[in-house]
Amino acid sequence: MPRPAPWRLLPASYPTTETMQTRFQDLDPMGHLNNVAFAALFENARVRFNQRMGSMNRERGFRGVVAQSTINYIAEGSYPEDVEIATGIGAIGNRSWEILAAMFQSGKIIATCDTVIVMTSSPGEPLPTAFRHRLEELRVREG
Amino acid sequence: MPRPAPWRLLPASYPTTETMQTRFQDLDPMGHLNNVAFAALFENARVRFNQRMGSMNRERGFRGVVAQSTINYIAEGSYPEDVEIATGIGAIGNRSWEILAAMFQSGKIIATCDTVIVMTSSPGEPLPTAFRHRLEELRVREG
Amino acid sequence: MPRPAPWRLLPASYPTTETMQTRFQDLDPMGHLNNVAFAALFENARVRFNQRMGSMNRERGFRGVVAQSTINYIAEGSYPEDVEIATGIGAIGNRSWEILAAMFQSGKIIATCDTVIVMTSSPGEPLPTAFRHRLEELRVREG
Amino acid sequence: MPRPAPWRLLPASYPTTETMQTRFQDLDPMGHLNNVAFAALFENARVRFNQRMGSMNRERGFRGVVAQSTINYIAEGSYPEDVEIATGIGAIGNRSWEILAAMFQSGKIIATCDTVIVMTSSPGEPLPTAFRHRLEELRVREG
Repeated sequence: MPRPAPWRLLPASYPTTETMQTRFQDLDPMGHLNNVAFAALFENARVRFNQRMGSMNRERGFRGVVAQSTINYIAEGSYPEDVEIATGIGAIGNRSWEILAAMFQSGKIIATCDTVIVMTSSPGEPLPTAFRHRLEELRVREG
Repeated sequence: MPRPAPWRLLPASYPTTETMQTRFQDLDPMGHLNNVAFAALFENARVRFNQRMGSMNRERGFRGVVAQSTINYIAEGSYPEDVEIATGIGAIGNRSWEILAAMFQSGKIIATCDTVIVMTSSPGEPLPTAFRHRLEELRVREG
Repeated sequence: MPRPAPWRLLPASYPTTETMQTRFQDLDPMGHLNNVAFAALFENARVRFNQRMGSMNRERGFRGVVAQSTINYIAEGSYPEDVEIATGIGAIGNRSWEILAAMFQSGKIIATCDTVIVMTSSPGEPLPTAFRHRLEELRVREG
Repeated sequence: MPRPAPWRLLPASYPTTETMQTRFQDLDPMGHLNNVAFAALFENARVRFNQRMGSMNRERGFRGVVAQSTINYIAEGSYPEDVEIATGIGAIGNRSWEILAAMFQSGKIIATCDTVIVMTSSPGEPLPTAFRHRLEELRVREG
């Protein structure tokens, strides 16, 4: 199991950050944020990130779906404190790209998430050029 | 089915208000906030309200549980807009009390929630006096 | 707070029953089924009940929405045991009807749920006659 | 992004299978099982698998936590059909092990999940011998 690289644990590596509220629903029987709650929070950060980028899953845009998502659980999360989710773009392929994220709580890293999105419309065609440029502008800063 | 009284639909009727984020997870197949998401948001508002009041379900406090909860669905909710949840205390019984709440989105009422909490510790004894006073301070203002 | 009538606590009062699995996600920090998990389970029972009845929210059918839902929490629920949800029709109005349900675990009642569904299509018209007959066939048997 | 090996897509590769119900709550705005619902279903399968193995997170047992979880989304899932989740043990380390799972619906693979569990109690000590033997008995059968 490869652990996240050190730069993945630093807020400064990501171009955007968003504060997100935790909910009582997120707690598990141990009194910590549940593993699936991490997944829901990362998904929410990803959807909001995508909405700011436009183009995908919109009229006259193209369609993309999550093909793979990996969460590394680094420390326990608590309620009712907010979390900060930092997000940026990783590898960009011909018809796919990575959304890399990290979750912090009270200034401490608690998880990372690597998600691969794959374009499902326009078979055989590469990602639209304008969209690829937006992805490049939002790349993470590796170490 | 008794519909909520007109004063229940006004933010000014409640002593406290909290802004809460919606999540992508809250959406249903119709593209609206799901009925159960309303329940989760109201629960979260209630837990935060209780935490500010202290005393309940704490060490050296007393224990209380939700005995009944009614949600009136008034209009559809959407994502990613936040909601505002206004909360206050309704009827106060010997060993129980009501938490009354209303949910607004973009300035419009979308739901109300009436929850009855019952004290489960110290059988036969009334609510602690200091706690009852705090409840009274947080009463709703009925039109 | 009116408590459920005694007949509401008996499986035999309802024409249909469905077994439903609980999930680890349903647990709260006290190690019991969370209040919102009850709402999700009752919603699921209701959707499956509606699907068996057909007509609503289908092509060439009519549209209906949940207008009000009340849950009475009677005892704690646990995981990983299944629950049984018994469901039937209560009051039938001109353009609305009640779905009444009760949740049992290990043979013991743990909650009831009263939901009012309101027809939102064909303003001014009553419920379709054939649908009303199906509702009547599925009425609860009040003690 | 490495895709799952062909043997990962076959039910026969896993020593145990469990049928799990889907819920209306699992649906997303596209009318498919939501990505986070897959995570909740896989978590539930894992908890039930662990409970059958005993030892972990029990009195006089040892403690373990999820360190990493990867889901490969292969096809869309639907409601209200059940899913089957097949589960087995992958790599076994000194203080960690993999739980490998695959989700099927209507006989078709829709996702795989690879989870790494790490022992958090008894620092410096290896996994208890008896527990390691149980893990070995439940190994997946790699093509």
